[in-house]
Amino acid sequence: MPANVWPTNARRQEDGVVTVAGVPLPEIVEEYGAPVVVVDEADFRLRARQLARAFGGPDHVHYAAKAFLTRQIARWVDEEGLSLDVASAGELAIALASGFPAARITVHGNNKTRGFLEECVRAGVGHVVLDSPGELHMLDDVARGAGAVQSVLVRVTPGVEAHTHEFIATSHEDQKFGFSLASGAAFGAVRDALAAEGLHLDGLHCHVGSQVFDAEGFSLAAQRVLGLLGRVVDELGPEYGGREALAEELSLLDLGGGFGIAYTAEEDPLDVAGVARDMLSQVAAHAEASGVPAPKVMVEPGRAIVGPSAVTVYEVGTVKDVPIDEGITRRYLAVSGGMSDNIRPMLYDANYDARLVNRFAEGEAVAGRVVGSHCESGDILVHDLMVPDDVGVGDLVALAATGAYCLAMSSNYNAACRPPVVVVDGGEARLMVRRETVDDLMAREVL
Amino acid sequence: MPANVWPTNARRQEDGVVTVAGVPLPEIVEEYGAPVVVVDEADFRLRARQLARAFGGPDHVHYAAKAFLTRQIARWVDEEGLSLDVASAGELAIALASGFPAARITVHGNNKTRGFLEECVRAGVGHVVLDSPGELHMLDDVARGAGAVQSVLVRVTPGVEAHTHEFIATSHEDQKFGFSLASGAAFGAVRDALAAEGLHLDGLHCHVGSQVFDAEGFSLAAQRVLGLLGRVVDELGPEYGGREALAEELSLLDLGGGFGIAYTAEEDPLDVAGVARDMLSQVAAHAEASGVPAPKVMVEPGRAIVGPSAVTVYEVGTVKDVPIDEGITRRYLAVSGGMSDNIRPMLYDANYDARLVNRFAEGEAVAGRVVGSHCESGDILVHDLMVPDDVGVGDLVALAATGAYCLAMSSNYNAACRPPVVVVDGGEARLMVRRETVDDLMAREVL
Repeated sequence: MPANVWPTNARRQEDGVVTVAGVPLPEIVEEYGAPVVVVDEADFRLRARQLARAFGGPDHVHYAAKAFLTRQIARWVDEEGLSLDVASAGELAIALASGFPAARITVHGNNKTRGFLEECVRAGVGHVVLDSPGELHMLDDVARGAGAVQSVLVRVTPGVEAHTHEFIATSHEDQKFGFSLASGAAFGAVRDALAAEGLHLDGLHCHVGSQVFDAEGFSLAAQRVLGLLGRVVDELGPEYGGREALAEELSLLDLGGGFGIAYTAEEDPLDVAGVARDMLSQVAAHAEASGVPAPKVMVEPGRAIVGPSAVTVYEVGTVKDVPIDEGITRRYLAVSGGMSDNIRPMLYDANYDARLVNRFAEGEAVAGRVVGSHCESGDILVHDLMVPDDVGVGDLVALAATGAYCLAMSSNYNAACRPPVVVVDGGEARLMVRRETVDDLMAREVL
Repeated sequence: MPANVWPTNARRQEDGVVTVAGVPLPEIVEEYGAPVVVVDEADFRLRARQLARAFGGPDHVHYAAKAFLTRQIARWVDEEGLSLDVASAGELAIALASGFPAARITVHGNNKTRGFLEECVRAGVGHVVLDSPGELHMLDDVARGAGAVQSVLVRVTPGVEAHTHEFIATSHEDQKFGFSLASGAAFGAVRDALAAEGLHLDGLHCHVGSQVFDAEGFSLAAQRVLGLLGRVVDELGPEYGGREALAEELSLLDLGGGFGIAYTAEEDPLDVAGVARDMLSQVAAHAEASGVPAPKVMVEPGRAIVGPSAVTVYEVGTVKDVPIDEGITRRYLAVSGGMSDNIRPMLYDANYDARLVNRFAEGEAVAGRVVGSHCESGDILVHDLMVPDDVGVGDLVALAATGAYCLAMSSNYNAACRPPVVVVDGGEARLMVRRETVDDLMAREVL
């Protein structure tokens, strides 16, 4: 199995059956049905450790819960010593229900309600990332009302947008998150947060994009944010014990998430160690240039940890040859599942590596497409791939790298019941999330 | 309120508060919170009746459950005498749980499993729409095994794709649904369905697209499908009691769904009566030209019934002016909810009519954007609109025409709890679906 895309512990046996962590995928389907999401626990932990090592320790890495969160996953994150990013009251509630230490939780969100902020303060979360002036004042009020001081970061929009190997640098960002650096809003937020009795500002935050594979975008954003920090300590230092004292206080630089993963066999995986080394050395250089000490760098990977850890196994239900031009046909493989359990191909034109996992394919490769079972012509999981012409009804096809933003964004479209999640480790499979039922779908109906 | 977009019974009171069916939207928010989906029951029934009248009676109209289905909605459809289209085992189960008469259910799907087909036969559904050769033979086998004869339609892909006021005519359709007309697959399916002892073929089905506002696309598709029918009765009539007898037997022509609705105040609504009149007269002409009797025309509206019946009411939580160019700012209104309850702006670039519903706006209009609360910069509900500059935190903003494909495709992204659905009618509000809770989200976790 292509190691850049499939879980670390995926293997194809001599009989052609694919195992993950020693568990044959067909056995999982036999027990739990298809579709089913299979998570390689050791792979998840390995990626968490690689990131921790690359960035200087687990306290530098926050797992972004939005990629995929269950209580069990939160416990893995805890056990690995990582911190946890949540972006909503619901994610915070699940994290707390798992027993995750509140002090290692960072809270994001562009529209936090007063009730959510109250819960943050009550629970004692490590940091709230301030996103708007209204929130800053509301949180100050909430914290003071509770006799607490809430640690915060200020989210800065530095005008850097990064994707894959490119980035765009602008002066302004037309987006909903954070305080604009260029307009002075970010400076104002820092000044206000420092002055707020209910808040303790520990540093700055920025986020450059997603599916980023190199350090340049992060570096430019860090340069701009550290430039702001330099101005902050120059101008406000005198009020807060001097330039150096204030710089010591604002020592956290959270560079957000966005590390890329390979989705297809042709793509290179992220060089975690290399990118981290580049980021850290460039941040240190930018700090020096701005006359501030090298900050403690934090990162917020979600996809880069859980994305490659999971695969989704589907059963082929219908095979159809569709004529698409004179003499040319496309073989459509329709599988159990589709846009309800993975909206990414429709939403982001995402591509996936799909493989037959219950046996070796022996047929000749023909032009194919993997589609779902939904009543929508756009319900396509893999647009263009070569499929062995012996793949038939009852065969199992798995898509790799479906751990992030698949179940997290899953729906009940066409009254689809969401798939179970099975954890595999050391040759054993355990059910983590059971399959949804039609009774579940009707459970909230009161009329 | 613009009558082309808002529910029939939406009004703005003298104090600026918007009511639907006599119930003030702020009162609904006070009782059930925000976001909340409000369905105008009389509007739903009115649109169902308008379609029934336009097409010659409720037996000509199938409500497409995929647009939005609860047991209560299935009962409204039943009470109005319409038939019901389901496209999955889950939709069928919900319909049957509502008490909907199976004989008025038509079953779609490109990947029906044997178990699903067994349930169709057991329940006694009116029609199964055959979508592939494998399904045809499997259903025949299932029906014969149960000592039953299952009525079916054959889904034909006629090479016509329609959207809004345009259509594209091709010879082949590169899509997962149906039997290709041009390749001869459709003729073969008809021949096989006629020959299958377990099946009774009642006619043909086709579907041209979505958001269609005029008859031309339907008409061309009907012409092609009726041309196939002419060939079928010519060639196969002799085996089945003669040309006329076979034509009588294959008397249903289901032209699918796809009727458009207006999403913004600038768009014209569908002229239901006019389009139906055009469709029916053109179908009759095409039938005559193909030498077959005018078929009984069926249509499958989902969006055209439930789409405009519902509005989603959000509370504004954050107001932020974001500089987007020298001297130009955009006012971002962040609301409770977003891409979890309405993925259509992200998925289809859909636009919506957003209005302040708790009072009159008095401010000057400024360039604005309505965004959700999700941790994703693309989480935008309305990209570009003018917003009164006095809209602030706590104000209520409603999006109209959110009845179809919003809750049906809703997710729990960022652990968002899906909104409640409230039915309003005759000045009264009743809860149809309660709000989801974090406990609901964790209920399927077993580890």
